[in-house]
Amino acid sequence: MSSTRESDFEELLKIIRTVCDLRAAAGLLEWDQETYMPTGATEARSRQVATLYATSHELFIRDRTGELLERLNGIEDDPMEFLTSLVRVTQRDYSRACKLSPELVGKIAEVTSKAKASWAQAYRENNFERFAGDLERVVGLCREKAEAIGYADHPYDALLDEYEPESTSAQIKYIFDDLRSALVPIVQAIAEAPQMEYAFLHYSYDAEIQWDFGMEILRDIGFDFQRGRQDLSAHPFSTSFSINDVRLTTRIRERSLVSGLFGSLHEAGHGMYEQGIDPELEGTFLAQGTSLGIHESQSRLWENQVGRSEAFWRCYYRDLQQRFKDQLGNIPMERFYQAMNQVRPSAIRVEADEVTYNLHIMLRFELEMMLLEEKASVHELPGLWMDRMQGYLGVQPESDAQGVLQDIHWALGAIGYFPTYTIGNLISAQIFSCAQSALTDLDDQISRGEFKPLLEWLQTNVYHWGRKLSAAEIIDWLTNGAVSAEPWLAYIRQKYSAIYGNLP
Amino acid sequence: MSSTRESDFEELLKIIRTVCDLRAAAGLLEWDQETYMPTGATEARSRQVATLYATSHELFIRDRTGELLERLNGIEDDPMEFLTSLVRVTQRDYSRACKLSPELVGKIAEVTSKAKASWAQAYRENNFERFAGDLERVVGLCREKAEAIGYADHPYDALLDEYEPESTSAQIKYIFDDLRSALVPIVQAIAEAPQMEYAFLHYSYDAEIQWDFGMEILRDIGFDFQRGRQDLSAHPFSTSFSINDVRLTTRIRERSLVSGLFGSLHEAGHGMYEQGIDPELEGTFLAQGTSLGIHESQSRLWENQVGRSEAFWRCYYRDLQQRFKDQLGNIPMERFYQAMNQVRPSAIRVEADEVTYNLHIMLRFELEMMLLEEKASVHELPGLWMDRMQGYLGVQPESDAQGVLQDIHWALGAIGYFPTYTIGNLISAQIFSCAQSALTDLDDQISRGEFKPLLEWLQTNVYHWGRKLSAAEIIDWLTNGAVSAEPWLAYIRQKYSAIYGNLP
Repeated sequence: MSSTRESDFEELLKIIRTVCDLRAAAGLLEWDQETYMPTGATEARSRQVATLYATSHELFIRDRTGELLERLNGIEDDPMEFLTSLVRVTQRDYSRACKLSPELVGKIAEVTSKAKASWAQAYRENNFERFAGDLERVVGLCREKAEAIGYADHPYDALLDEYEPESTSAQIKYIFDDLRSALVPIVQAIAEAPQMEYAFLHYSYDAEIQWDFGMEILRDIGFDFQRGRQDLSAHPFSTSFSINDVRLTTRIRERSLVSGLFGSLHEAGHGMYEQGIDPELEGTFLAQGTSLGIHESQSRLWENQVGRSEAFWRCYYRDLQQRFKDQLGNIPMERFYQAMNQVRPSAIRVEADEVTYNLHIMLRFELEMMLLEEKASVHELPGLWMDRMQGYLGVQPESDAQGVLQDIHWALGAIGYFPTYTIGNLISAQIFSCAQSALTDLDDQISRGEFKPLLEWLQTNVYHWGRKLSAAEIIDWLTNGAVSAEPWLAYIRQKYSAIYGNLP
Repeated sequence: MSSTRESDFEELLKIIRTVCDLRAAAGLLEWDQETYMPTGATEARSRQVATLYATSHELFIRDRTGELLERLNGIEDDPMEFLTSLVRVTQRDYSRACKLSPELVGKIAEVTSKAKASWAQAYRENNFERFAGDLERVVGLCREKAEAIGYADHPYDALLDEYEPESTSAQIKYIFDDLRSALVPIVQAIAEAPQMEYAFLHYSYDAEIQWDFGMEILRDIGFDFQRGRQDLSAHPFSTSFSINDVRLTTRIRERSLVSGLFGSLHEAGHGMYEQGIDPELEGTFLAQGTSLGIHESQSRLWENQVGRSEAFWRCYYRDLQQRFKDQLGNIPMERFYQAMNQVRPSAIRVEADEVTYNLHIMLRFELEMMLLEEKASVHELPGLWMDRMQGYLGVQPESDAQGVLQDIHWALGAIGYFPTYTIGNLISAQIFSCAQSALTDLDDQISRGEFKPLLEWLQTNVYHWGRKLSAAEIIDWLTNGAVSAEPWLAYIRQKYSAIYGNLP
């Protein structure tokens, strides 16, 4: 590299590091808001988060960044190279960021920070109207953002692109239609099979014992507590401020043994992805998950393909029984495993079984499309939610807190985010089936509590790339193909046929 | 105000708010580093904190800030006015900040962030040499900083001015000499009085019960947990990211009932000062304590004048006895009070009694002067510390962890900070004696657990000003005079004569 190029690169890198550091700081302020912040600090925190995003945005979109990118463009062709990848990814982010004025970015940060607080209050009080005003402002800003970014077919595409680069709402619709036609007969067949009752799942399970069990499992599967931690919050999430500082949160309910544990496994999947990124990429735009679909594939892989597998419980069930002798002493492993995998439509997405989960996503996707198209107002959401829950899942949430208020995403301004959950489900099966081929005795390893081979395989093939490879490139690299529902459907058919009898 | 002035002021205010928000974010990152951050994140955190301080510094020292300040200078004369005060204080900070290059500021943030981590490790491992290299770098940077800022007589003055504006090392020396000559005969007289043994202070006191007791007292005295919280850390400190987000930390030792409680009261005094600042000043340079001396006067007032008073224990002792029946059941209140106020030279500053405390400060001040004058090297510090502890206090610390490593201040780059502790002690007595005059039955109020009148008096007369009034102005406003050792000496003589017999 010539010395001019070198100094250009150094200058660009300094801008990138500053932007990343300011965003990481904003991330910590947001994490703190959900975990430890005193309630009286909400207003100041909103202002501070807005300032951090606005400042990082202003520093990023300066003309100088564009000049440097132009001068550094297309030097090398190897997509594995640090510099080439960094310039390419930065160029993408820069083009997108330049379309958003500092005022709009600041406004979004401020409004969503307030919306987060009013959402939390509305959730606690089961009072949607306390959140409605802020949500209206969020939706308005999302529309404004979509117009600023621009789109070919639908404003949704401009928003979706932030989370799942190069995807469109038309593709999502297509995949959802595809999936729905295969899923409906499966769900029907299961509905016709004899249903078991698992009352023991809702006995009282001491929160502290649940917490300790979850922490030990996180340690076992390989979440690195030297470079991360877990706390409690109203809604589980994961975030990172460095590949060496990854934070998980979970929530624990005494009346639900499943809720906390699978929440932890899910967030740990996200967290281990971040922890597994190549240290060389630290502090740059490359040190992130490459798309939310890939990200979610890892949370779902650890939560479902690992955590809800028979092999996993062959390893852990005796330990769990010891901790909860009164509740589980008489429950054989087989029955516990079936309870963990019971398919029954329910109101809460994060507690939904694997089979019906994607129906929760379809509902949200459709409501988001209606909001953006102004076919529905925010105030109509609770009613529409209830109607569709009945239509899709045949359940009626007990309250708005159990319904339209259950997710934090809209408060965060994350319209366009939900479809990545279903994309993630599909990819998780594609990646896990590759891992099964590569590690021939993966099931046995899991049943012995040996998670290192799987984690290392995932680190090598998925995690360490960061954003050097796109989602499509990773899937192509592993499967010689694209995102497909088939491996996921095959996984579902095989697993649930064993529980519910042959499925279509 | 004309519309030009108004828009100038708006623009200046926006700069100030951005700078304050970035600093608040840095503060949270530092708080997190001491409380919850995983150890592996140290390097990233150093970089992030450095970026935040460097970015805020760069935004602040732009020429535009200077232009706006010049145009807004001297409009109004009333020192109580928001605008006049803000312009005056900002001008002071701006002049000082412009003397420090962004490189130096970034370097200081980075080195001190690393030094904090190596100090914590050195402290845990009782291994000074693990910290020595970083401390050398810190001292070098402090010297560099003093040269950049400039001084008339001594580099120490340039550093001291950051913490105690408009004070000099010569004044400090003068006050210390003054104080020493009055203190020595008092300490001697106490040494000659019969010494009591209070073994019960070091029985085992359950950490959780200690924590709960401390939390209840913080609530009682008026620390607002809606706008603040308390956590654990290796060294107690307080910090704030807004007047509505004030964080205290404490450390609890099972073998020392005193350590955690008085640490909490001390930090709560700092915290209530911050919480009591006029909300109108929020998010600006005015929403801070006006000097560290005034700040420390409030931590010491709540820790000592309130927390170590007979009246306070008339209120709380029965409750404490109930919680620790085995340890305190047979100890009468009078004896407990005397134990809380036992004068006995010891190794640890934060656990020192009121009478000998200032000797710890004198030692540190002298070592700092020697470091800056290059009359001592960092590697000589452990030896010099041991020698002087013997000389001043007649005690020999058991280890460097109990000696030269006990304070975090040098790791933070806070050379010039320690003298403000003694200044604070003196001011605390000046202010408390004013409060006693204003609230004639203050003692009775405290013994009934009524802290509201005192807190409100302090809010009105000290806290709510923020930086609108300087330390000298507040003391003049209350006493028609300046900082003086007399009220403190009178307080000490009166209180300890009652315990140890007539003192000189």
